[in-house]
Formats: sequence, C-alpha cells, structure tokens
Amino acid sequence: MRGPRIQIGIVGYGNLGRGVLSACRQTQDLAPAAIFTRRDPKTIEAPIPVRSVQELPEWQKRLDVLILCGGSATDLPHQTPELAASFNVVDSFDTHARIPTHFRKVDQTARKAGTLALLCSGWDPGLFSLMRVLGEAVLPKGETHTFWGPGVSQGHSDAIRRIPGVRHAVQYTIPLPAALRAVRAGKGHGLTSAQKHRRLCFVALEPGADRKAVEHAIKTMPHYFAEYETTVRFVSESVLRTRHAGMPHGGQVIRFGVTGEETPQRLEFHLQLGSNPEFTAGVLAASARAVYRLHRSGHVGALTLLDIPIGLLSPHAPDRLRRQYL
Amino acid sequence: MRGPRIQIGIVGYGNLGRGVLSACRQTQDLAPAAIFTRRDPKTIEAPIPVRSVQELPEWQKRLDVLILCGGSATDLPHQTPELAASFNVVDSFDTHARIPTHFRKVDQTARKAGTLALLCSGWDPGLFSLMRVLGEAVLPKGETHTFWGPGVSQGHSDAIRRIPGVRHAVQYTIPLPAALRAVRAGKGHGLTSAQKHRRLCFVALEPGADRKAVEHAIKTMPHYFAEYETTVRFVSESVLRTRHAGMPHGGQVIRFGVTGEETPQRLEFHLQLGSNPEFTAGVLAASARAVYRLHRSGHVGALTLLDIPIGLLSPHAPDRLRRQYL
Repeated sequence: MRGPRIQIGIVGYGNLGRGVLSACRQTQDLAPAAIFTRRDPKTIEAPIPVRSVQELPEWQKRLDVLILCGGSATDLPHQTPELAASFNVVDSFDTHARIPTHFRKVDQTARKAGTLALLCSGWDPGLFSLMRVLGEAVLPKGETHTFWGPGVSQGHSDAIRRIPGVRHAVQYTIPLPAALRAVRAGKGHGLTSAQKHRRLCFVALEPGADRKAVEHAIKTMPHYFAEYETTVRFVSESVLRTRHAGMPHGGQVIRFGVTGEETPQRLEFHLQLGSNPEFTAGVLAASARAVYRLHRSGHVGALTLLDIPIGLLSPHAPDRLRRQYL
Repeated sequence: MRGPRIQIGIVGYGNLGRGVLSACRQTQDLAPAAIFTRRDPKTIEAPIPVRSVQELPEWQKRLDVLILCGGSATDLPHQTPELAASFNVVDSFDTHARIPTHFRKVDQTARKAGTLALLCSGWDPGLFSLMRVLGEAVLPKGETHTFWGPGVSQGHSDAIRRIPGVRHAVQYTIPLPAALRAVRAGKGHGLTSAQKHRRLCFVALEPGADRKAVEHAIKTMPHYFAEYETTVRFVSESVLRTRHAGMPHGGQVIRFGVTGEETPQRLEFHLQLGSNPEFTAGVLAASARAVYRLHRSGHVGALTLLDIPIGLLSPHAPDRLRRQYL
C-alpha cells in the first residue's frame, strides 16, 4: 500500500451497487465509505453506512470518487452531470446513441468544477470498446465484429414481460456458430446482428393466457425479435425463478485482418461472465482507482476508458508492472 | 487526415523491418521515409530510400519517430539508448529479465534529450502484458495464465539447429488442451510452462547424421525440451523449406476470477497470427503514432504500452472513437 485508501461513495444500491461494494472489498486500496440511495436509507441493509442522496453535499470532502450505479435510461443522464459538479465520478452510461451528448455535458461541468469523470465504463461500452479500437489500430485492413452472449439480455426480457398474459420472462442472446466461423475466417463482411445471434425466450404465463398469441407477439416484435431466429419455451414461474435467476452474460470482439501479402491475422477478446453486474462492478471499481490518480495529477473533465493508460487501472506501481506483468 | 503525415524511419530491414514498412503502407497517416541498415545499403532492394545507419544524424530533423527493428539479444540494448538521445523511438525489446535495466537506461537518456521512447512493444511483451494487467485489475481475485502457440518458436528452433548433425529445424510450441481446460475452469493454479505446452520439432539431418543421437540430444536439452512433452519428426530439408517456412504464432492470456459469492468470471485474449513479425510490426507502427502524439503534447522519457491510452494508437480522433467505437 502506498498512501491512504481511496474513499469511494456508491450511489444506488441495486445489483450493480452491491457488485461495486463487493468489488471494492476484494482490493486493498479502495475503501467503500458509504452508500447513497433515493430510497429510505433505513430500508436498506448493508455492511457500510447507508445515507440519503440528499446528504451527498455533506460528504464532499470525505469522498475521493463516486461510483454511479443508476441506469442509463433515466438516472445517469441527469445524475452524472449534477454530481460531477462536486465530485469525481465514474459511470456506466451505455446508451450508445446518446454518448456524445452525455460526454459533452459532463465534460463542461467537470472542467468548470475541476473534477474528473470517467464515463461509459464497464464491458460494452468499456472493455469491448478498447478491443474494437486496439484491433483496428494494429490490423488496419480487416473487419471487426462484436458478438454478445450467451447471456441474459435485460432489455429483451423486459420487452417480453410487457406483453399481456406474460407473468415473467428471461431472454438469452446466443451467438450463431456459423456466423462465428465466418467471422474467424475473415468472411463476416456485412453480417447483421440478426445473422450473428439467435434469441431463446423462457416465458411463464398468467393463468388463462393464450400461448399461441404470446408466442406470436414475441416473434413478430420489430427490432427485438422479428428479424431474429427466435425460440419460445413456456415454463412455470418457479422454474424461471430458480433455474433462470442468474445474470450470466458475455460475448466476444473479433478482429480479422490481413498484413503483407494477404497474411491472415486474428485477435479475439472473450468474456464469459457468471454475473454481468458483478463483472461490470469490477471494471467500475478499477476505473475509480484510475480517476483518483489522474485527478491527483491534475486531470479534469470527462474521459472514457479509451483515454486512460491500462496501467492506471492496476493497484500496482509502474515499476512493479514492468517487472512482473510486462 | 488531420495535419501532415508522421515521418517514420525504419532501423533494420529483416522480417520485422519489412513488416513495419508494409504496416505503415496500410495507414494514411504514417509515412515510411527511409530504411537505415548496418549492411551496405546498395545490397538492399526496397521501395523507399535505404541508407546507412551512419547517416541517421543527418535525418534528425526529417523524422518524427524511429521504429527499431533489431534483436533484443545484441542490437537493442545499446541501439535504443543511443538513438533515443536524438530521436523519438519505438522498440520491441523482449528479454523479460532485462526490461527494468533497459527501461531505466533509455528513460534517463530520453529525459535528458527531450525525446520519447516506447519500449517493449509488440504482442508479448505488449498486448499480452496489457491483458495480464487488465484482467487482474478488473478481477482482483483469481489467476492469470499465458499460453503460447500454436506457433514457431525461433529460440527453440535455433537451439535444435546448434546440435551437431542437424541441417535445419523448425519447432512448434503447442498449448495442451487439458491445461487450457483446467485454466478455463479456474483450476490452473501452479501449472508450469511444461505442463501447459508441448513441443513438436521438425528436423532435417546432415547426410550420415545419427537420428537416435539427435533425437536424444533434443529431448534431454535442459530448459528448452527436457521438461516438456517433446515430439521429434525427421523430414527432408525441402519439406522444411516449403511446408514450414512461415512464421505463424499466437497464444492466449486467460484470467479466471471470482466475484461476490464465488461467481466465476472469465476474460480471454487470443491471437492467431499468420505471421508473427508482420503482426508485431503492426503493433510497432500503431505505437509510433502514439509516440508522435504524446511527444507533441510534451511527454518525454520512456514508456511502455501500459502507460499510454489505447485511443492514441488509433488514427481516429477521440470524438470519432466515442461515436463509432465506444
């Protein structure tokens, strides 16, 4: 240990927030100081202090970095810029189309406030983004493909749950082996997401619901399922709650390229995650370490994982990294 | 294109130097300006000017970055510090045990001269180092394993070629599937390199050489083969020159970790390379781009890939990377 532990505030205590607490506890240098919630703090049981988000201003001098564990749809678009006015922050904003706007907004606030914000951390965006950039940088002539799964897509599960007659549902996104083979052989050009993945849906119905109608509603839902090879399996709610309660996920980024006289070269990055939120939490925790260091060395404004040295994510000093990891 | 092309000097014109020339020509922003050689420049045919290394001082103002393509055993230990006194440089120094000394020496020279040196670039050390650090940073509780191959090990091929009676030899390093399975399941603790790889040797003998004696000499060679499952196959020299002339290589870095209540998580990085020197050259070329940018923004001294943002390896501007790659 070099110096005091980095004081972390966890904002939001759902799956991701619990993952961040657990991730910090696996390190020696990150101290989870308190959880901040919009719920009544008394209703939350946790091994560290739980406070209302309203109390955050009082904690400004005690916290080095806030890790924001809210959602991209409604929480982070306003929460990150607001909190970046007083704190160094890390978020996992993942609505791809809105990233430039989110980034600009937070960057302005943070520069004015002299704080540092690391945005869009996690695995996609995040580690997968790093690999897409790295793959193309070292193999400029070629193609990059991202596959997701096998794993649970929260968005697709939610879409099924909104269909009348559905009590509960879990949707697995699964890469198609033929597409993986084509991409690995450099023959993936133009493959769409629907040509690269299939969708497997486990659905529990309300009593009296019409199976055929529900299956039809799923399979014809545009964007979510209509374009995909989609399988629907009806199971009981208890099967869903017991056998499909985990949040496994993963995926891979594949860069196929050619060098010299058309020599084939391939770079692949794979994640197989027993728990999507716990892994994302690990990336956010390491990101907080980098934010702390960069802010101390004078950096302010907004950054993403593409802008920071990988070495800063590690608890070890540069000379140790060179000796033992290089 | 933003601004003028980056002027690259290529020092050394073996397999790696040729790869660097080819890699630069796949980009729009790296201009290979000249090759510098210790041989008689007239004996080298190349599509860009070839000059004696003696002439390098005259090129100081015309070149932005030198990419050093010599070997780690005898060239780079003196060449990198010497040239860093006048140029920004990139090297692929890969003698792991001597990295701290090499780094310190170059760092001192470069700081004094106001130049920037990116050392130990390539894939191992290099991209594999990035993955070892990244894997442990995001999954602190777990184990990291590196596998090499399937691919040709130049060092092991050379070791066989030094045995009396051997005319030519090519050695393939091959990961053992059982070890890969164990590591992926989080059961790789303590596995040695010899428990993770086997060695397949193709050997052409001199006329009259003793097969049994050569095979014995290979299989009992300490460090190189004695500890490994080693297979020796005798073939004709023409088979070696035709079917085993390529320099394929690759390997994988696997991080197995657990989060929360022992949830298994796995991160893997794979390379399958049709040509080891051509791929390494692609990494060196991207590294030169980062060196150019960092030096322009005031950085001096020695760095490795662990110290630089991945985004700087890409020809694209940060806002484009956020829009299209994040």
